[in-house]
Amino acid sequence: MSRGIIVAAQPECYLALLHYPVLNKHRQVVTTAVANLDIHDIARAARTYGIAHYYIVTPIAAQRSLVETIINHWRRGYGAEYNHSRREAFSRVCVREDFEQVCRDIGERAGKKPRVVATGAALEKGLISYGELRKALVEGDTPWLLVFGTGWGLADSIVARADCSLPPVRGGSDGYNHLSVRSAVAVVLDRLFGC
Amino acid sequence: MSRGIIVAAQPECYLALLHYPVLNKHRQVVTTAVANLDIHDIARAARTYGIAHYYIVTPIAAQRSLVETIINHWRRGYGAEYNHSRREAFSRVCVREDFEQVCRDIGERAGKKPRVVATGAALEKGLISYGELRKALVEGDTPWLLVFGTGWGLADSIVARADCSLPPVRGGSDGYNHLSVRSAVAVVLDRLFGC
Repeated sequence: MSRGIIVAAQPECYLALLHYPVLNKHRQVVTTAVANLDIHDIARAARTYGIAHYYIVTPIAAQRSLVETIINHWRRGYGAEYNHSRREAFSRVCVREDFEQVCRDIGERAGKKPRVVATGAALEKGLISYGELRKALVEGDTPWLLVFGTGWGLADSIVARADCSLPPVRGGSDGYNHLSVRSAVAVVLDRLFGC
Repeated sequence: MSRGIIVAAQPECYLALLHYPVLNKHRQVVTTAVANLDIHDIARAARTYGIAHYYIVTPIAAQRSLVETIINHWRRGYGAEYNHSRREAFSRVCVREDFEQVCRDIGERAGKKPRVVATGAALEKGLISYGELRKALVEGDTPWLLVFGTGWGLADSIVARADCSLPPVRGGSDGYNHLSVRSAVAVVLDRLFGC
């Protein structure tokens, strides 16, 4: 008979960075280009804070191919040998064509569809506080998916589909909150998982 | 007689990103190249969290000249017209030759030499907690300077000169903490000034 201690498995949290559908500065829905440092910085932050998988989402096949090449360089190519911690970070990065594919993929991995959390610098409705989400992440048995938008943020269609939204990250009293998505991801993960 | 309410001025906090003296992966002291997104991301985070000035520090004249060109594009050139929030972020960025110049500059602006806080992913000595520093930032009347290193982090000579160090940012229990300096800056500022 086993005397092993039963440890409740922490529900997995996933992260998606969308390049479509996102807004441009005129609030039009557009597709943005993948930025190399979005791959690196967010992979490193995701690994640091224990994110199960980091999905880079773009409908453009040539961009997906480029991202795959970059991922493979750091996972298996010269980069993997040169920088072991980067290889480790890249082991959890994948690229997908659209948001639906990400949700299906998580459903298959985790055995349940994820609860989706939208993020953005101007979200006001359906908010869950960082403290509430931190608690829910530890207590529940549902996988969670944090969704970040490039450009000027997630299109309304994605926010409307989310189960809830995190409040915008604010720093000071004057309301300026124009962080890069790389910085916003780091701050949100630290608020949810930092110690 | 004035009936104005007297409000205690919040002591100013400054930030410096050093490209020398910093370490490479073999712990040798080197000079790193300036990365364009270090200018942008940290300028935006510094402005979001109310940092008085963000100093980019490099001993290489050609790099300082390049940084000045980039700053001017976003402060006065086409970039300033295209993106007002970026112009606002860049209004607090300056470039200096070395760490001594930064300390002198702050001394002249603030009327007092700054207390220096080192940051890094492996610092262990002379630590001040985020909570203690957050309190000190509000209560004291001394300017503070947060110092971040590029490459593999600040050289020992800078850490030894600092008045104290912040503990490494950690995310999970397995100790992996290889954030980019851009992400680390955002997390540290959020822990000190976020609301």
